[in-house]
Amino acid sequence: MDKLNIDRHISQQYNSALDDLKKEFLEMGGVVEKQIIDAVQSVAEADVDTAQKVLTTEQDVDAREMAIDDLCTQIIARRQPTASDLRLVMSVSKSTRDLERIGDEASKIAKMAIAISESDDVPHGFSELRNLGRQVHDVVDMTLTAFARYDVDLAVEVVSKDKVIDREYDTAMRELITYMMEDPRNISRSMNVIWALRALERIGDHASNISEQIIYLVKGLDVRHQSADEMVQQLNQE
Amino acid sequence: MDKLNIDRHISQQYNSALDDLKKEFLEMGGVVEKQIIDAVQSVAEADVDTAQKVLTTEQDVDAREMAIDDLCTQIIARRQPTASDLRLVMSVSKSTRDLERIGDEASKIAKMAIAISESDDVPHGFSELRNLGRQVHDVVDMTLTAFARYDVDLAVEVVSKDKVIDREYDTAMRELITYMMEDPRNISRSMNVIWALRALERIGDHASNISEQIIYLVKGLDVRHQSADEMVQQLNQE
Repeated sequence: MDKLNIDRHISQQYNSALDDLKKEFLEMGGVVEKQIIDAVQSVAEADVDTAQKVLTTEQDVDAREMAIDDLCTQIIARRQPTASDLRLVMSVSKSTRDLERIGDEASKIAKMAIAISESDDVPHGFSELRNLGRQVHDVVDMTLTAFARYDVDLAVEVVSKDKVIDREYDTAMRELITYMMEDPRNISRSMNVIWALRALERIGDHASNISEQIIYLVKGLDVRHQSADEMVQQLNQE
Repeated sequence: MDKLNIDRHISQQYNSALDDLKKEFLEMGGVVEKQIIDAVQSVAEADVDTAQKVLTTEQDVDAREMAIDDLCTQIIARRQPTASDLRLVMSVSKSTRDLERIGDEASKIAKMAIAISESDDVPHGFSELRNLGRQVHDVVDMTLTAFARYDVDLAVEVVSKDKVIDREYDTAMRELITYMMEDPRNISRSMNVIWALRALERIGDHASNISEQIIYLVKGLDVRHQSADEMVQQLNQE
């Protein structure tokens, strides 16, 4: 091979490593997305089998997190990426942690489903749980799409939708506390619903974190600790 | 300068960048450690001024997180570290996120202190809170020492102590729920204590995450998702 061909060969290997990284990340995203759907269904239908499935998937998610981190380190050590390529590697390295935590929170919800299924009564807060579950799944789905398409506008939308989720979570929480005060015999059971709601709220936060990383990777801007409005302002200044 | 001197000069710059990174990380650790102490004190003494101090420090912590991330990317792009140097950069990049979250959880505790101070009664669970607060501060302190000294044994000890914290958190939580059932008028107030306990438990988890990164950076082993016993076994096999 002449020099030009060797260069082209190396550059193809390099691009394919970055493509692999993106692909692995999106695949892991698909796995945890399914975990959210299953976890919410397992709670809503007191379905222990589906809950067990969520718990079993945890090991797969952990293994994927470690494999992606390994890939990140290898790409940096061997390919010495700079600029936007380096930002891709760094943001994937941070965001896999968020994906893994999303899986973790889904597992917590599945455990609550098992606890809830062991009692006869249906505790209050189920419709709130289902409603919040749907919204949280939506933002995770939007996040993965934003990553796949490098879509900054969609990433900003996730951050702003997460604020709506936080408010709905607060409302649901206040309702549950009122309910517990009215019927203290239900406190233990209601606490399971509270933990599941809390886990959903956390999943929204992780989707928001990943979306901030997407903005960083596409635009090179660190927009963490900003509101969606501040982000739009900063992005418009560019 | 001759070639040897230029090389030496570059290598000194390189080492000093890595030293700066370690220093910045430990300084940020010191700031969030103080936040934990203040947050727990603000709850235990219903001290609103100290609680406000914790909340004000949040911006400093956020700025430090972003500065450290910036330093990590710069070191990778300009110095192209490999092997243990690259592991240092990657693990610091992951661990600053944990430090920032620790600060976040301390702020949540401070907010609970403010909410609690607005009512006259002293809710149950204060001694548990103080006790758990002391233990959680201990593991964060151990984690920073383990990082400063590259002390793998101490890092493993953090992971195993975090399990003890998790158990004590479960016990405290059960006691508070029993108390709420006995006196439902106190549910709202007890929920504040519950959120503060939960925040402490999360801080323990973050300390444990950082300790896993310390083991990775010193030994090159990915020990995430393992128990302390499994870690010791794997480390002994090396």
